[in-house]
Amino acid sequence: MDPTVPDLGIDIPEISQIAFVVRDIEDGMDRFGGVLGLGPWEIYRFEPPTLTDTTYRGEPHDYSMILALTFVGETMIELIEPLEGPSIYTEHLDEHGEGLHHVACFAFDDTEAVVREFEEAGMPVLQSGVFGEVPYWYFDTQEQLNGVVFETATNLEAMQEPDRTYPE
Amino acid sequence: MDPTVPDLGIDIPEISQIAFVVRDIEDGMDRFGGVLGLGPWEIYRFEPPTLTDTTYRGEPHDYSMILALTFVGETMIELIEPLEGPSIYTEHLDEHGEGLHHVACFAFDDTEAVVREFEEAGMPVLQSGVFGEVPYWYFDTQEQLNGVVFETATNLEAMQEPDRTYPE
Repeated sequence: MDPTVPDLGIDIPEISQIAFVVRDIEDGMDRFGGVLGLGPWEIYRFEPPTLTDTTYRGEPHDYSMILALTFVGETMIELIEPLEGPSIYTEHLDEHGEGLHHVACFAFDDTEAVVREFEEAGMPVLQSGVFGEVPYWYFDTQEQLNGVVFETATNLEAMQEPDRTYPE
Repeated sequence: MDPTVPDLGIDIPEISQIAFVVRDIEDGMDRFGGVLGLGPWEIYRFEPPTLTDTTYRGEPHDYSMILALTFVGETMIELIEPLEGPSIYTEHLDEHGEGLHHVACFAFDDTEAVVREFEEAGMPVLQSGVFGEVPYWYFDTQEQLNGVVFETATNLEAMQEPDRTYPE
């Protein structure tokens, strides 16, 4: 075992979500729906006033996005179109174009403890926010996880109803 | 619905696998194990003579790789280190570095029919091969699926024993 690799001792119970950045959410839903049969989608605008406490690289920072969510089996598929402000999504579009962006686990017993473990192991929060009553955190794991961004969130049972669904 | 988007009419039952390209398989296992607690890993060398019938962009083509597989819940996690020959993995390392590479479904009722549907819809096989008795196909879906490569395979119950496991 390479002694330079952090050892958090966390136990990830599931991959809850796989997320893709797209330039246009309607186009993304049409393409994933047409080719892979994904949908129907629940669509959320992540923006103020419902989106609060947004941070980016450790500082308060305004950004917003539109999300489309569906399930394939037990796995949540998320499409993300960035709206206002620089974010890890616009960074991805600038550097790589559209595509796979992050994986997430929403099933930790103590999510706040997991956030502390990442920070203490040198993987600080890269971007975060609170949507309604649902806090989420992305970690700066690209160096430690071979290029992969990891997200967690908690209290998803308090997620509000979507703004709309597609197809309606 | 955008009429230029292919409509295959397939119904994807699950995301069977999420795959990451890494430069060094041991490093990848150490990192995903240390940070996210993934493992133990089953390791396979995908190379001749067990690997046969390899193609790349429609032509016979030699390439090889080493894989490490583990499960997180129901989702198979795959790390891929390319060995010999240009491949879609070396392309990814050259263009994007390490990171998320593709998603796969191994649970279609009629996988050969799915392969034909992709080809007829203008998403030809990008890379393929047969490992022992397990054929697999990657499709050229990056234009139609917002940058995402999709894979399928069949007969996974005939997969041979791994070359080794890690930790042993």
